[in-house]
Amino acid sequence: MSQTRPPDSPLADIHSTREALKSGETRADEVLARAAAVSRSAACRHVYMPASLDSMEQLKAAPAGLARPLESIPVSVKDLFDVAGQTTAAGSTVLAHAPAATADCLAVARLRAAGAVLAGRTNMVEFAFSGVGTNPHYGTPVNPADTGVERIPGGSSSGAAVSVATGAAMVGLGSDTGGSIRIPAALCGIVGFKSTARLVPTTGALPLSTSLDTVCALTHSVRDAVTVHEVLAARTVQLAGKPLSSCRLAVARTLMQDGMDSTVTQAFERALQVLRQAGAQIEYIALDEIGDLAAINSTGGLSAAESYAWHRQLIAEHEADYDPRVARRILRGASMGAADYIDLLAARRQWTDRMQTRLDGVDAVLSPTVPIVAPSIASVLHDDDEFFRVNGLLLRNTSVVNMLDGCAISLPCHTPGQLPVGLMLWHAALRDDTLLDLALQVESALTQSL
Amino acid sequence: MSQTRPPDSPLADIHSTREALKSGETRADEVLARAAAVSRSAACRHVYMPASLDSMEQLKAAPAGLARPLESIPVSVKDLFDVAGQTTAAGSTVLAHAPAATADCLAVARLRAAGAVLAGRTNMVEFAFSGVGTNPHYGTPVNPADTGVERIPGGSSSGAAVSVATGAAMVGLGSDTGGSIRIPAALCGIVGFKSTARLVPTTGALPLSTSLDTVCALTHSVRDAVTVHEVLAARTVQLAGKPLSSCRLAVARTLMQDGMDSTVTQAFERALQVLRQAGAQIEYIALDEIGDLAAINSTGGLSAAESYAWHRQLIAEHEADYDPRVARRILRGASMGAADYIDLLAARRQWTDRMQTRLDGVDAVLSPTVPIVAPSIASVLHDDDEFFRVNGLLLRNTSVVNMLDGCAISLPCHTPGQLPVGLMLWHAALRDDTLLDLALQVESALTQSL
Repeated sequence: MSQTRPPDSPLADIHSTREALKSGETRADEVLARAAAVSRSAACRHVYMPASLDSMEQLKAAPAGLARPLESIPVSVKDLFDVAGQTTAAGSTVLAHAPAATADCLAVARLRAAGAVLAGRTNMVEFAFSGVGTNPHYGTPVNPADTGVERIPGGSSSGAAVSVATGAAMVGLGSDTGGSIRIPAALCGIVGFKSTARLVPTTGALPLSTSLDTVCALTHSVRDAVTVHEVLAARTVQLAGKPLSSCRLAVARTLMQDGMDSTVTQAFERALQVLRQAGAQIEYIALDEIGDLAAINSTGGLSAAESYAWHRQLIAEHEADYDPRVARRILRGASMGAADYIDLLAARRQWTDRMQTRLDGVDAVLSPTVPIVAPSIASVLHDDDEFFRVNGLLLRNTSVVNMLDGCAISLPCHTPGQLPVGLMLWHAALRDDTLLDLALQVESALTQSL
Repeated sequence: MSQTRPPDSPLADIHSTREALKSGETRADEVLARAAAVSRSAACRHVYMPASLDSMEQLKAAPAGLARPLESIPVSVKDLFDVAGQTTAAGSTVLAHAPAATADCLAVARLRAAGAVLAGRTNMVEFAFSGVGTNPHYGTPVNPADTGVERIPGGSSSGAAVSVATGAAMVGLGSDTGGSIRIPAALCGIVGFKSTARLVPTTGALPLSTSLDTVCALTHSVRDAVTVHEVLAARTVQLAGKPLSSCRLAVARTLMQDGMDSTVTQAFERALQVLRQAGAQIEYIALDEIGDLAAINSTGGLSAAESYAWHRQLIAEHEADYDPRVARRILRGASMGAADYIDLLAARRQWTDRMQTRLDGVDAVLSPTVPIVAPSIASVLHDDDEFFRVNGLLLRNTSVVNMLDGCAISLPCHTPGQLPVGLMLWHAALRDDTLLDLALQVESALTQSL
């Protein structure tokens, strides 16, 4: 298995780090000291929540061997997960002074039990409510892929992605409700795996949409994605090692390739070419069902209804403290009737059934994770129209998989010197293991082609 | 095992009929001819949907032995279940001329596959929307328990209950969303078992509340309830034969004993006494949680929201054709917001968890199924206030179990010469088998005590 690394970064993944620790090439305290140094560097401006920086001394904690799968691995935690003794603010100021959590959420407890060292709480889009990655309260983490222009990191797991892409953490625990793991993975050039939602309990995580929220993580490689998912889901992934030459892959024509910029077009086409050369059978399918989603979601969508249910007390009292762009999207849920919501749940079930039938016999669908490379922070920061246009474009492809209750992985497919582009492999619910198996082969083929 | 029969009725249950068929004491065509004769008698006025009477000739169909569990058993079908070639009107005139169903619903298909002979479609409360049993379009089936005063049968499975209580059918297929099987069972003096909802798919049944609807049946005895449930759920019930003397039973104090009339008080107390004498340990528990339901349902409840979602198109176009009492309850759902509904679902889950914890270690809870004997049809027919007062009283105890997502059985506990009174045994989800096991012992003890 090869390791995916951003072409212009020397960062190591969990597996190569463990090899280096085993051989004595490096020591655990060195690994942690390196991560801590990056965390405090300019590259990580706005990446960690302010209070979090004070507690980073734990990165120097004594290492404990290699018995557990994440022993001595620095892991950052998105600000919406409860960590005992810390406040969960979800990137907001409204909750910045809320009482500290009394217990770790289940995901954090499982990471700790696997040996992970918590590197701190990462900044995020307020209440996880956009794919762009901006945060007016704590600043916007800068995408490390371009040293010239300050570009958006993607969101909502913005700090999580930058923490991993810079090397401040080796794993970024995050969540994905419409693309919040995969969008920043694509824009920052790392790996983001969104499992089937039900595989990881959301206990102790601040919700956005209880129907769609998925607890998952950002990593440097697919093999790390496998390891971290095994820890988060408390299960073993079955990897069949099916060769690409016996895989049937589909490219979804409807909607998912619209509006691609030239960098994405080039990288995506090149990736398809590499996979074809590796023997994969690639076919274009219409997948018209994707076009039906706009009508299904026309009354507001699950996120609007479910987030409004959670926020309505808080927003009634503190609307002025919310990012107006976030408040606007949450308040869409206020006008939705119970019957609209019930119809939406039923329509989703029917749509999912139709999609599953359509995807039978295909090993995975291939799409660009997002159709554009990261725009500059300046272009979206003060222009609402442009912000919502970009946000819609970023969420468009990824959110299809959340509605499907499916699984998806974004992995880098750009060539050195290009801005990062993500290739998304996806499928219906509980196809996680075959998807990860395939992703390992795809990652290997893409890396070898460089 | 003994057979429960209404004290003043000579009706046989499935098991004794099969014995008689096996011994040659009776023939299948005689069984069916008897049922057909009752169906066409005055006792069954308003019990069957008009179109249904024309097709009753099938009751004379040739019998086919005893191999399958419901061979030659006449089974009535509540008007909300699809039967191939018939219109599903759910007791309404709005749908009286809807296209005929093209296939049997799953429940009917399973009954047929078990050998049942369909006795016809039973009248019901329009769209299953009350516990009283009145229907202004097709008339109200008369409770056969009192030959003097015309009393309500209970609902919404009104015709189903009267079909069984008169002997027009040996099984009445019905549904229970808030008590629609158990209320008429109690008022008519027969057995009504509401299984845990998920055990029987609702495919092909016209919905009232998708969260609460349960497909189940009315029978003459608990052992018949077991057999019919096994057919409907396509599973085998495990009967451990636990003796009453090792059972711990609870009587819920909160709310469930309020407003009992003297007949119910007497019958319920006598039943407790019989069970105590049989060695059961009976304790009174507060179960304060039941008192929380009013607040949880204050925004309208699941039935209002979910039925409004289903009916809103139809009611917008045809409100004048609805029973105004039904329309009024459905339209409560119009004002419910998506967030109210989401909060209600969450509150229900939390409440259910608390209730389950509270019921741990208890074999079942005992309550009067309904606190009153059947009032006269005249008393509720033209008086809205009285109708809604009675309806609230009838649904009060039974609907607790639907909110709990639990299982419950109502069995007769009155003495000869009294109006029927139902004793309800209930528990949380998936306790069906232990509940049925217990019900067999309770039925036996009560029958022996007469």
